[in-house]
Amino acid sequence: MDSLYFMYKSEQLAHNLKLLIENGSWQPHSKLPSLREQVQRSGFSLITVMNAYQELEAQGLIYSKEKSGYFVAEQNNIQIPQAYSVVSLNPKIEINSLVFKYLKSIQSKQVSPLGSAFPDSQLLYPPKLIQIMGQLSRNRHSYDQTTNLPPGNLALRKLIAQRYCMQGIPTDANDIVITSGGLEALNLSLQAITQPGDYILLQQTIFYGAWQAAERLGLKVITLPEHPQHGFDIEAFEQVIKNYPIKVCWFMLNAHNPIGFTVSDEIKYKIAKLLHEHQIHLIEDDVYEELFYGNQKPLPMKYFDQQNLVLHCSSFSKTLGSGFRMGWVYAGKFSEHIQHLQLMSTISANALIQNALVEFLSHHHYEKHLRTLRRALEKNKKQFFQYLKQHLPKDCKVYNYPSGYFLWIQLPDKVSSMQVYEQLIQQQVGVAPSPLFNVLPSHQHFIRMNCSFEWTEQIQHSLKRFIETVQLAMSDESALDK
Amino acid sequence: MDSLYFMYKSEQLAHNLKLLIENGSWQPHSKLPSLREQVQRSGFSLITVMNAYQELEAQGLIYSKEKSGYFVAEQNNIQIPQAYSVVSLNPKIEINSLVFKYLKSIQSKQVSPLGSAFPDSQLLYPPKLIQIMGQLSRNRHSYDQTTNLPPGNLALRKLIAQRYCMQGIPTDANDIVITSGGLEALNLSLQAITQPGDYILLQQTIFYGAWQAAERLGLKVITLPEHPQHGFDIEAFEQVIKNYPIKVCWFMLNAHNPIGFTVSDEIKYKIAKLLHEHQIHLIEDDVYEELFYGNQKPLPMKYFDQQNLVLHCSSFSKTLGSGFRMGWVYAGKFSEHIQHLQLMSTISANALIQNALVEFLSHHHYEKHLRTLRRALEKNKKQFFQYLKQHLPKDCKVYNYPSGYFLWIQLPDKVSSMQVYEQLIQQQVGVAPSPLFNVLPSHQHFIRMNCSFEWTEQIQHSLKRFIETVQLAMSDESALDK
Repeated sequence: MDSLYFMYKSEQLAHNLKLLIENGSWQPHSKLPSLREQVQRSGFSLITVMNAYQELEAQGLIYSKEKSGYFVAEQNNIQIPQAYSVVSLNPKIEINSLVFKYLKSIQSKQVSPLGSAFPDSQLLYPPKLIQIMGQLSRNRHSYDQTTNLPPGNLALRKLIAQRYCMQGIPTDANDIVITSGGLEALNLSLQAITQPGDYILLQQTIFYGAWQAAERLGLKVITLPEHPQHGFDIEAFEQVIKNYPIKVCWFMLNAHNPIGFTVSDEIKYKIAKLLHEHQIHLIEDDVYEELFYGNQKPLPMKYFDQQNLVLHCSSFSKTLGSGFRMGWVYAGKFSEHIQHLQLMSTISANALIQNALVEFLSHHHYEKHLRTLRRALEKNKKQFFQYLKQHLPKDCKVYNYPSGYFLWIQLPDKVSSMQVYEQLIQQQVGVAPSPLFNVLPSHQHFIRMNCSFEWTEQIQHSLKRFIETVQLAMSDESALDK
Repeated sequence: MDSLYFMYKSEQLAHNLKLLIENGSWQPHSKLPSLREQVQRSGFSLITVMNAYQELEAQGLIYSKEKSGYFVAEQNNIQIPQAYSVVSLNPKIEINSLVFKYLKSIQSKQVSPLGSAFPDSQLLYPPKLIQIMGQLSRNRHSYDQTTNLPPGNLALRKLIAQRYCMQGIPTDANDIVITSGGLEALNLSLQAITQPGDYILLQQTIFYGAWQAAERLGLKVITLPEHPQHGFDIEAFEQVIKNYPIKVCWFMLNAHNPIGFTVSDEIKYKIAKLLHEHQIHLIEDDVYEELFYGNQKPLPMKYFDQQNLVLHCSSFSKTLGSGFRMGWVYAGKFSEHIQHLQLMSTISANALIQNALVEFLSHHHYEKHLRTLRRALEKNKKQFFQYLKQHLPKDCKVYNYPSGYFLWIQLPDKVSSMQVYEQLIQQQVGVAPSPLFNVLPSHQHFIRMNCSFEWTEQIQHSLKRFIETVQLAMSDESALDK
């Protein structure tokens, strides 16, 4: 295992500093080395050091004072993980209606898209791919479904398999099934593995599609709370799988939606070990896998899976454009079953687009595009973060991780994110309130913000509306207290 | 009702002649008027008269002798409809594995496509649409999913609604939901209406997707046998809905797949009346609706539906190309529920293609293309029919209806269509055996043949292989009998 284990530099640095805080070497309210000092000490770049400090801050381990630098936070600021929860989906949770209402409300072009799940489309639909589409679409043979039926275009499956191999995951084209977007990959995978009444373990805060899929398939849902520091609570996980006959887990461990964390390889390795011991399957939602800021792509759980228990699902929706509706699953031995299910639901993914992706991927255009995309997302999110940190009331906390394009904003306990969302949507500003991702009453005061957009006056205007609305909600709450 | 009721000319003629046979005016083995005489008597064109005679022949009411003309068949040739059957899908019917194996076997380009469900792609993908795709695909805005999310592109829904209105069915754009192909429309509709354990009534011989959907949703299946003359057995239907708490029916009444018949408007009206009386929903699979040979498009059941009980599902797959993956459902009051289901499975249909269809449909290109397509299908099928009638052993019967591109071939009772299929696939010829469409042991000796292809030496070669294989199977059977 040791040889497999690595971290991004900033993560590594953050990890080391965290140890110093946790073992008491650095006492609460003591000042951390300045950024410049830390650069000299560690040998890392200024960017790496800043990222590490920001991560520690997001995790609530340190705090910053303007012009004074960073300080160690009180240890008791760290939340104690709640025990896992058994959630009954019978009678039905109202998440479907909420999600539907929400998606409809942010759909209009008039609404500022800070609630969207997709990156700014200006950053997607790369010109080279559009050019290829323009060429192929004029040829009627590009539309031929015959060679694009499940499991999908062979050349495309080979190219996807190559990308797994480059990460050290032995993959054959026949392990891959192409789907109409990542959500279809996730749904078909879950359907292939479960029967109604089976137990599924979800992260407590998770992409709403997981709740909906579990509900639709009649599964019993158990949820696992996030670990406030590591993202994933391995001890609670071990406890729950010892106590419940879990058939399958559905986890997102890289650039988690909505929170943003990436779980360390050390923990991933432990999860894999437990999955194997208990012979539990995992649906791995990894649709943000390419949107890391460091030099190396985080490993998926699939990397640690020796027994074909993990179905790794991903897509091109967050990197090339959701309008292409193109995803896949590393299905392995489940390939045939998933193809069965696909042939009786949507028959196949779009032939033209599969053909265009073959062209695009085989000439390294994708890597080039991803590098540009990552830089832009990192830059844009940074601007959002700085603005929010500066202007949000001090009782709010912004979780900022070095990946993706979401910030996860914690409002004071009593402030309802639904109320903030509803007041903002009346002002044509969309944000995603936490009840979309977490059904527990204790998690109603978070907001997911999409920070993929270029810093414009319009965006700044929307953020001002957001901050005003939060301030208003907070003053309402404190007025009620009196 | 009278004012609504109409028939195609050939259907009307066939209907009148049928009455003469049924009421005994024309005795068995008496000679029918020659085609020329009939043209003079009826005032219809030669084509119309030929179609009427062919339909009567396909229904087993008359038979032809070479160079002598047509004769009235023995009345006892008419099959007595079987009673409806209750089919338990628990334990699971093996239709999924069979369909999967079948679809895989005919997928190769080396295999003659007579088993395909899709028309010859040479007749689809019209140049004008390809040109529009070429133009739109070079513009990144064409891919924008925002305005193409469920219920789908508004302009496209308006154009589809107009087509319903032109048939006298009052329709608003908001009644329509665009889907990724017709099968998704059918599946989402069924899912919106049923709960596991509900009773569904299927036609006994039906597109296998209906069996699969019923199985996947855990429904109890009852099947209704086809009426040998009218396609639909209204008396058996009345009997079954009086005896079982049917929640929903899934019927195909126009250009039925695989058999080919179109049910008369008179019977459709009666079905609608019974549906209303018993408040039963209908999933209407009408994906072949545009492929009629007469002058007027057959009415869907939706036309006779005053209470929003019918969910009419159709697609562009059989007319423009299945590679576009574009269908829709007239969802009416179920629109929101179906959108819910779509947002949690495939999110939306492809934006680019929705935009292209708007362009294509709004300039009457579709009508022009449909006229050309229908002519070609009629011409090609006619050639297949004549060849098969001439060369197939006399014990075989070919059902030929004036629509679509399938011939339904009845082999002698003891000949297994699975065996014929398996022997032919080894010779690289694909045909669709009846166990794909009918799970009853009494219906194992039919073949669906796709006759959409231009008459080439290669096609003729494949048909020769087919006829030889049937002959061989028949001689094996008769050898066994001795």
